[in-house]
Amino acid sequence: MDYKARVHVEIGMDFPEDPHEQLWGAVGAVFNSWMNQRAKTYRQLHDIPESWGTAVNVQAMVFGNMGSDCATGVAFTRNPSNGANDFYGEFLVNAQGEDVVAGIRTPQELTIKARKSHGSDLPSLEEVMPNIFRELCTMRQQLETHYKDMQDIEFTIQQNKLYMLQTRTGKRTAHAALQIAVDMANEGLISKSQALMRLKPELIDQLLHPTLDPKAKKQVIAKGLPASPGAAAGKVVFSADEAVRRAKDGEKVLLVRIETSPDDIHGLHAAEGVLTTRGGMTSHAAVVARGMGRPCVAGAGAVQVDYAAARLSVGSVTVQEGQILTIDGVTGEVILGEVPTVPPQLSGAFGIIMAWADEYRTLQVRANAETPNDARQAKEFGAQGIGLVRTEHMFFDGGRIIAMRRMILAADEADRKVALEELLTMQREDITELFRIMDGRPVTVRLLDPPLHEFIPHTEAEMAQVAKAAGVPLNRVRRRAAELQEANPMLGHRGCRLAITYPEICEMQARAIFEAAAAVGKAGGAVPVAEVMVPLVATLQELSILKEVVEKTAAAVQKEQGMNFTYRVGTMIELPRACLQAGKLAEQAEFFSFGTNDLTQTTYGLSRDDAGAFLPEYKAKGIVEQDPFVSLDQEGVGELIKVAVERGRTARDGMKMGICGEHGGDPASIEFCNKVGLDYVSCSPFRVPVARLAAAQAALKLRGEKALQPSTKAAKPLQPAFGPW
Amino acid sequence: MDYKARVHVEIGMDFPEDPHEQLWGAVGAVFNSWMNQRAKTYRQLHDIPESWGTAVNVQAMVFGNMGSDCATGVAFTRNPSNGANDFYGEFLVNAQGEDVVAGIRTPQELTIKARKSHGSDLPSLEEVMPNIFRELCTMRQQLETHYKDMQDIEFTIQQNKLYMLQTRTGKRTAHAALQIAVDMANEGLISKSQALMRLKPELIDQLLHPTLDPKAKKQVIAKGLPASPGAAAGKVVFSADEAVRRAKDGEKVLLVRIETSPDDIHGLHAAEGVLTTRGGMTSHAAVVARGMGRPCVAGAGAVQVDYAAARLSVGSVTVQEGQILTIDGVTGEVILGEVPTVPPQLSGAFGIIMAWADEYRTLQVRANAETPNDARQAKEFGAQGIGLVRTEHMFFDGGRIIAMRRMILAADEADRKVALEELLTMQREDITELFRIMDGRPVTVRLLDPPLHEFIPHTEAEMAQVAKAAGVPLNRVRRRAAELQEANPMLGHRGCRLAITYPEICEMQARAIFEAAAAVGKAGGAVPVAEVMVPLVATLQELSILKEVVEKTAAAVQKEQGMNFTYRVGTMIELPRACLQAGKLAEQAEFFSFGTNDLTQTTYGLSRDDAGAFLPEYKAKGIVEQDPFVSLDQEGVGELIKVAVERGRTARDGMKMGICGEHGGDPASIEFCNKVGLDYVSCSPFRVPVARLAAAQAALKLRGEKALQPSTKAAKPLQPAFGPW
Repeated sequence: MDYKARVHVEIGMDFPEDPHEQLWGAVGAVFNSWMNQRAKTYRQLHDIPESWGTAVNVQAMVFGNMGSDCATGVAFTRNPSNGANDFYGEFLVNAQGEDVVAGIRTPQELTIKARKSHGSDLPSLEEVMPNIFRELCTMRQQLETHYKDMQDIEFTIQQNKLYMLQTRTGKRTAHAALQIAVDMANEGLISKSQALMRLKPELIDQLLHPTLDPKAKKQVIAKGLPASPGAAAGKVVFSADEAVRRAKDGEKVLLVRIETSPDDIHGLHAAEGVLTTRGGMTSHAAVVARGMGRPCVAGAGAVQVDYAAARLSVGSVTVQEGQILTIDGVTGEVILGEVPTVPPQLSGAFGIIMAWADEYRTLQVRANAETPNDARQAKEFGAQGIGLVRTEHMFFDGGRIIAMRRMILAADEADRKVALEELLTMQREDITELFRIMDGRPVTVRLLDPPLHEFIPHTEAEMAQVAKAAGVPLNRVRRRAAELQEANPMLGHRGCRLAITYPEICEMQARAIFEAAAAVGKAGGAVPVAEVMVPLVATLQELSILKEVVEKTAAAVQKEQGMNFTYRVGTMIELPRACLQAGKLAEQAEFFSFGTNDLTQTTYGLSRDDAGAFLPEYKAKGIVEQDPFVSLDQEGVGELIKVAVERGRTARDGMKMGICGEHGGDPASIEFCNKVGLDYVSCSPFRVPVARLAAAQAALKLRGEKALQPSTKAAKPLQPAFGPW
Repeated sequence: MDYKARVHVEIGMDFPEDPHEQLWGAVGAVFNSWMNQRAKTYRQLHDIPESWGTAVNVQAMVFGNMGSDCATGVAFTRNPSNGANDFYGEFLVNAQGEDVVAGIRTPQELTIKARKSHGSDLPSLEEVMPNIFRELCTMRQQLETHYKDMQDIEFTIQQNKLYMLQTRTGKRTAHAALQIAVDMANEGLISKSQALMRLKPELIDQLLHPTLDPKAKKQVIAKGLPASPGAAAGKVVFSADEAVRRAKDGEKVLLVRIETSPDDIHGLHAAEGVLTTRGGMTSHAAVVARGMGRPCVAGAGAVQVDYAAARLSVGSVTVQEGQILTIDGVTGEVILGEVPTVPPQLSGAFGIIMAWADEYRTLQVRANAETPNDARQAKEFGAQGIGLVRTEHMFFDGGRIIAMRRMILAADEADRKVALEELLTMQREDITELFRIMDGRPVTVRLLDPPLHEFIPHTEAEMAQVAKAAGVPLNRVRRRAAELQEANPMLGHRGCRLAITYPEICEMQARAIFEAAAAVGKAGGAVPVAEVMVPLVATLQELSILKEVVEKTAAAVQKEQGMNFTYRVGTMIELPRACLQAGKLAEQAEFFSFGTNDLTQTTYGLSRDDAGAFLPEYKAKGIVEQDPFVSLDQEGVGELIKVAVERGRTARDGMKMGICGEHGGDPASIEFCNKVGLDYVSCSPFRVPVARLAAAQAALKLRGEKALQPSTKAAKPLQPAFGPW
């Protein structure tokens, strides 16, 4: 009666008694739900167009709550957490489906095996209703054979009769997705290419998330269900809105809820991870967190949440909003404070998928890396070379920035040459190390790119320090800082423009690269193909002038060192004008690397640093579908790339071209790169496996998704496609 | 013998005695001179490619210095200063040519008329050698008939025999160039179109330079020859290098030399004007200054220059380097301090040339103008409409910036609307005035474009003032200033992005425009076609959203005012992406206006504010032929414009397109605009006459420079092509 009264208050009339009216009311409610905030958020997160609309299924009702010969449950045909080929689910006797997923009663396991492994005292369906259980197992088999994928099913038992309510493709963790794809391919249920096509490349990224350092001390305050793997630490927040608010300010938050509902989706998305005190492995929090790749510990019943006071407590331990907790989605542990993490352990399925991807893809995958650690990591992840060494990153370190500053503050060219000598030594050592690690793979070294003022501080105190460290008068620092100040540094004196003004910098860098190549060769290592890349080129003349500097330096080093080495001089294509002039540039450039970060900035007239003020609104209003810095703007920037590829290859047949902007790790952008005929993508080391899978999918799509055989023109990685795991 | 000794020192051997060797040495010296600094500077100033090389003429020597029946002289077939059809020149008895042009001896006039008008005591050639003079007059006639242009000739008389040494097209002032072109066309020597084609449009610009205010008090300290017209004031400098140095720092300088030589060219270029104490109207300083359009007073013999002490003196007056002098190139006066100037008086030839230009050109010419003064000036110069009203310029004035700041500092939308009400009143008044002045001609009003932080000061003291004036807490000013700070404002929250975030600003501006149109109409004036221009569009959606706001506002104003008016909503095309998306944009845009300033910045990745640090070097090294902000980069930016024109017109047949970047006043860019089929160019009011001539030349060139008849599709100016002069 309370509900009926509530209905009266909400809709202003009595609850209808006519069943038809009720039915149409319910149907209408479903259609209306398409436009509620929850649905909008969901669509936004999953890139589902609003125009699709929704549908309503009308089914006869069955009841799982008519007595002890009734039950209801949800199940996955395989384990959605680790992918194991185990029947996996939960049920409640004498209950409706809502009771299971809402996590209000703790549900029972389907199988004896699962009951034992979870140490549950409640009997499994296999024990309570063995005949029904067998029938359900047959269904499981039938559904998987039909759909060729793991299914998420709902069933109700009404007076000992099994009804299947729903089946759909089951959400799963990244680990499970890979395992299931590999297993199904091995079982012959799907082909290898189908296995590859169904894995969202982002899943791979989730696998590479770090886990807790097993050696770290940790104060475990509670334990829940390991509902979604990975470790997460963050400031505790108790509402989805607060999670979003703090995340916007750059804070890492952990969302703690008694239980979650679809209203919390935006908070789950904003949080590093989720902890609930009620609900099981198939609770809302668990399912959504797995889908999003967020770590989740569910049903940690020992934790008491006080929303009003904004705190939680476990026994004598109290945690206020804003204090840090860590959760381990693999063990279900809830830990006080922040626990250090270690690199992820990858399963065999990962290696198999990567190997399969390499069979199909035609795009090469390189990494952007400057440090030995990054280079090693990239190599381990299967990078086929380095596509971008940002040499300036090497100059920001302690002792180095002093030499860099001395160079910038030099009174004349002679002074500058002395400082450059120092930098030469450092740069040569750094590059030698990179060449050594990459062991014969190509390495593209970009000449100094950022405006010089990035190396000079701007407060009086810091300038005084710099003056002292660099041994120059404070006034000169002040004057130089003022001279170097720019209104729009992104469009200022940077890139090849620096090398045009200071050819001696270009010469020093070329020398460092070639001396490094020689050093590696002399030490018996594989001599790399050094690729010298000139950034921010707008005109052929810029490239010609600098290519001459590089070539002269190469000839000098070869003579000095008494050895020959192969090198290429190429250019970054990162300005609209460079795209248009690609035909001319190709007369001099031996390779192109598309710098799509800057190309997006200039094509759109949009500063990446400043777009934050309005880009979210632009996405919300549908002005841009995707942040163009995340996923390549194929219509605008993409057209310029196409033009450049065509003109470049017309001028220089078979010219090598790649992309080294951050789009190089974005699957949609990788598909585009494949389509327009680039030779490689280069991305951050941790995106390399993602890119390998995305490249395979791109190749398969280009072949019409029909090919079930590996490409005959498959990219051959220089090392086993899948290294240490 | 001194010379011979000097030769030995310089070249390390004796001066050759063999005439052949001497001749070859001389020939070699000429060829070598092609690469000296003087020649390089000259080529750079006149855009002469280095690859042309030079030639040597070997002629028998004649001597003007063999006695009193010998003489040498230089002459112009018409007056190079005012263009009058008078024989004009100077000679010296018993002298060599060098003596005349170097200005060491003061030369004699050719004609009696000239001698009298200059009040010279020395007899003219007409008097000294009447037969030779008549022969020279015949030559003058022959040469003009042959070359169909005014000639600059050199002659020598050796023992009563006239030798013509050289003839070439004579340098002349802008005034003279127009007069000569008009006269020669009227004389039937050349056609009207030839008259138009031979006038460099830049000449027109020189004519528009101000002259000294005749009512101003002035302390004339000396008088020289009126060698090149126009008035110039500047800090006195005594060397070309110093002139260049100070000009770089933004100072206006006046170059003062005893006499100039080709080594001083860079200084002449850097200076506002030139004053010499020796030499005549054909001295180096005079010829070069006229060619460059720099005012020049030559041969002011009363002025004593002391290079070593860096000062000049006339009687008791001493002027140190850095003090200001004014020269009047029309009267030859040298004046202490800075004298106010008045707008130029234009000759009848100017009006005739403008009228002829209008007969031939097909491009319309509009002006960029915000103030009533500029609009009136533009109309007087023959502008056919306003192509760009930068509405933000109206907000920088005293009381207005306070309202603008109140709007920016508003706590919420309601607060903002109050401030916008104030701005509405001001904006409506301003636009009403522009519409009234332009009297039915089209006026393109651009919506707010610059980032908001341009309106907020950044020092503490100024922020406190703003807080007080706008009646908001200082902290809010500080916070807002910090919020609005941008790394690359040029690529930031500006243009239509502002209107997307604050549609109420767009609405206010649209209302101001439409209410102004209604007000002018109601007052009985010609109702203008208001063109509302949306800046910095990158996507169709931006334009669609704002067009809807504008259209809704227009409908509301039409209803409120009970009258209809025509308007168009269009967009600036100023981003590479907009060029590529022009086909889509044309679905919504009713006109395009190319904002080539920003389009150049983004296509090149080059900030106009920051390019100064390296662009001069880029020009010097031949990396760019022209500053792309001065003359449109036709290869790069131009290709994007071509693409946009094609795509736009394919989507919307006959779509109106123009250009409103500063290139709209640059002749080479105007030719490009004509070629790609734009309908109009819009430039600063003072460039309108330049643009009219350049547009005529562009039309003639497009027709193969052969047409001698006016175009049948000639642009019809809405008012007499040439107004008050």
